[in-house]
Amino acid sequence: MSGIMEHILARRSIRRFTDEPVAASDIRRLLEAAMAAPTATNRRPWAFIVVTAPDQLARLRNGLPLGRYRAPLALVVCGNMRRAWPGPVQDFWIQDCSAATQNILLAATGLGLGAVWIGVHPIAPLRWHVAKTLELPKWLRPLAVVHIGHPAESKSPRTQYEEAAVHWQLFGGMPADLANPVE
Amino acid sequence: MSGIMEHILARRSIRRFTDEPVAASDIRRLLEAAMAAPTATNRRPWAFIVVTAPDQLARLRNGLPLGRYRAPLALVVCGNMRRAWPGPVQDFWIQDCSAATQNILLAATGLGLGAVWIGVHPIAPLRWHVAKTLELPKWLRPLAVVHIGHPAESKSPRTQYEEAAVHWQLFGGMPADLANPVE
Repeated sequence: MSGIMEHILARRSIRRFTDEPVAASDIRRLLEAAMAAPTATNRRPWAFIVVTAPDQLARLRNGLPLGRYRAPLALVVCGNMRRAWPGPVQDFWIQDCSAATQNILLAATGLGLGAVWIGVHPIAPLRWHVAKTLELPKWLRPLAVVHIGHPAESKSPRTQYEEAAVHWQLFGGMPADLANPVE
Repeated sequence: MSGIMEHILARRSIRRFTDEPVAASDIRRLLEAAMAAPTATNRRPWAFIVVTAPDQLARLRNGLPLGRYRAPLALVVCGNMRRAWPGPVQDFWIQDCSAATQNILLAATGLGLGAVWIGVHPIAPLRWHVAKTLELPKWLRPLAVVHIGHPAESKSPRTQYEEAAVHWQLFGGMPADLANPVE
């Protein structure tokens, strides 16, 4: 079970790709990874649109001002409102689909691919563009477009760990000897 | 870079734990993994409360009707509104913090630990309970409590891959020969 930390740190946002297509077997692995994510009460409120057709990729890209990266594959992660809980907890779909998206990014890293997460939800013009381009029914809500391909750039592994973002026991709490936890 | 798929599939929700504490070095690794997640325009709008004190763990647990699992460690993932984008894109913090949470779960798996994600946001009574227990300022919003410990149950790896959740090129599209993408 070693090596997971290396993958987590090696995952960087890759925005330049070669023209080499992503193998069908790798697409399948990426989708299996996505659907291995946990979801609130295991509702699995998601759907995935696999885009590989060049014209469709171009249309998708053209409506994403901050996501116009040329990759041979886009996986569009959507929330499925027919699966999501009704009522005030419906928005758990965002967390569930985000966990699935993170799994896609990590699986891509492990497969030697590069990927970048382009946020769509909750920006209305981006949601409309993606929904229209992919002919989504109203009950599918696009969360993110993940551009994926063979990387044409490399980045060093990193964490962005910050001590100031960590609190112990409660807000403002300092680290203490874990064998004698401060109360 | 092999092995990442195995970790992703091996990550299951573990709800029973031994009394053995989580080593300080493992807590550090979990936090490094969390803060290696991507965030929208790299804002890193997060904070993490590490809870190991038994009384504080009990208080936290007691207000989580669906999350009363006895673990020696809870990592509480919070959105930091002082770091998040202002305006309509503020809610990207939910996606960013969800990616961080998924990294924690995967890192725990890799370290031989078990973990379970307990949703807090957007359920108001849970948010209030966690914020009060951890004395959070208003600009920190709890997303999730992750209970972590040495597992006292084991589960088989799995994906929940479903063909019906996958569409090609657009909604309802069927898979086609990837060498000759359907337009």
